[in-house]
Amino acid sequence: MFTYKRKVQYHETDKMGITHHANYIKWMEEARVAFLDSIGLPFRKMEEGGILSPVVAVSVEYKTPSTFDDEIQVEVGVEKYNGVELSVRYLMKNTATGSVVATAASRHCFLKDGRICSLKRVAAPMHEILDRVARGTDTGETNG
Amino acid sequence: MFTYKRKVQYHETDKMGITHHANYIKWMEEARVAFLDSIGLPFRKMEEGGILSPVVAVSVEYKTPSTFDDEIQVEVGVEKYNGVELSVRYLMKNTATGSVVATAASRHCFLKDGRICSLKRVAAPMHEILDRVARGTDTGETNG
Amino acid sequence: MFTYKRKVQYHETDKMGITHHANYIKWMEEARVAFLDSIGLPFRKMEEGGILSPVVAVSVEYKTPSTFDDEIQVEVGVEKYNGVELSVRYLMKNTATGSVVATAASRHCFLKDGRICSLKRVAAPMHEILDRVARGTDTGETNG
Amino acid sequence: MFTYKRKVQYHETDKMGITHHANYIKWMEEARVAFLDSIGLPFRKMEEGGILSPVVAVSVEYKTPSTFDDEIQVEVGVEKYNGVELSVRYLMKNTATGSVVATAASRHCFLKDGRICSLKRVAAPMHEILDRVARGTDTGETNG
Repeated sequence: MFTYKRKVQYHETDKMGITHHANYIKWMEEARVAFLDSIGLPFRKMEEGGILSPVVAVSVEYKTPSTFDDEIQVEVGVEKYNGVELSVRYLMKNTATGSVVATAASRHCFLKDGRICSLKRVAAPMHEILDRVARGTDTGETNG
Repeated sequence: MFTYKRKVQYHETDKMGITHHANYIKWMEEARVAFLDSIGLPFRKMEEGGILSPVVAVSVEYKTPSTFDDEIQVEVGVEKYNGVELSVRYLMKNTATGSVVATAASRHCFLKDGRICSLKRVAAPMHEILDRVARGTDTGETNG
Repeated sequence: MFTYKRKVQYHETDKMGITHHANYIKWMEEARVAFLDSIGLPFRKMEEGGILSPVVAVSVEYKTPSTFDDEIQVEVGVEKYNGVELSVRYLMKNTATGSVVATAASRHCFLKDGRICSLKRVAAPMHEILDRVARGTDTGETNG
Repeated sequence: MFTYKRKVQYHETDKMGITHHANYIKWMEEARVAFLDSIGLPFRKMEEGGILSPVVAVSVEYKTPSTFDDEIQVEVGVEKYNGVELSVRYLMKNTATGSVVATAASRHCFLKDGRICSLKRVAAPMHEILDRVARGTDTGETNG
């Protein structure tokens, strides 16, 4: 499983003294981008190639609060991928305590020239990578 | 149904040219706070009374992109409330076009002295308001 | 003087219990956009016309903390404008107490096709509006 | 000079295609926190010891745009320190191109029990570290 690590920043806390819940959505994106890098599918390159990948849905279950200076590790993996839609799941832990901070999921589609497209058709090499990762024959670890 | 309106800010857009998806989580909070104000349950007062209400879960389905300067209206309502947990649902529309921008939901618990509590027991007057709103006999509109 | 009002949101506070200082930069942008709207120079239209206006510099002096649910009013005005660069100043007050929350300034240039340009040359009607406002013969109030 | 590195995240860009200018204020905080860690003065410990250090002023000059996936390095140093106020300066560069992205400065005071205090009086060991660093006999590099 690919793991992305980062510290909770002061600007990410709120007056409750804990990480504001909206930031976990940003961490998911950061972890997803790092994961895609790790499997040889940099998001920057994808966009330079004319493919956008907007978020279709997100969900987060908050398990334990985190706060300033905590190191969070986000384990990222492909839940499902069918050429047209990508589902990603996340497990976020507090590195120091090992406790689960949050579990989450996101769904993504692909756009070419502003229209929903099949990666399989418009970007076969990208499709093959994601397909291989989704089947579990490449976990990103070896590139991580 | 209580409706919260606000414009998409420039700082809420991303390089795809649309509202970054994490901001919808913030809009849900803004709409929820305004809704609680409207039913006579200001969040500020709740916190001053020693009750915190952290977010337990959120989910968003993104339907149509929005962008800078669009006016978004967020319809907020109580989905479920049982004294211990509050579920809120959201319908976000583009005011100008009427199209649904996103649908969303959030779940919240209540904390007193750092421990999960029943509002019914620790804050009966608050409980009664939420209970009445959840039963649909008070929609917030009359106070909005 | 044009005045932009907004409430401090929960997601804008930090663990010190006050508004995180980075948010004032966002409020400046929100107030600036509303001010430009008020003088008949909507930022959206400017961008649709191919003119970008990036921020060249910002500075903020924090005077009194603000926090969740406070209403902040931002008085915005043109400090200087010469066709090529625009300087804006801001006075932020707590509506309820009247105390000054922050004073701030920002500087902006104009880009056409990715290159710095003179508004006077590439967009004379916009230039005339800004020039008139900068000379104080139009304060935005009448359109506000 | 202590250097803090981080990549520009997708959620930090705006519809102009570049990093939104408010994020540089957040990077300054992240770099400052890492710098204080590096000189043996962790912010978390300071707050646990009852000392808060709010931001009194910030200023940024934006030199070259940065965007998603760029690695930014922030060089941080103490500009001035007199026991009561701390001035920090920042030089932000694009690691790949070496070009200066922004220069910036921030000023900070110290609070104990909600009142402005002299670190020299309320926290002599912290004072000594900052004083030594400000005099340039400790640059943070050796701990970085």
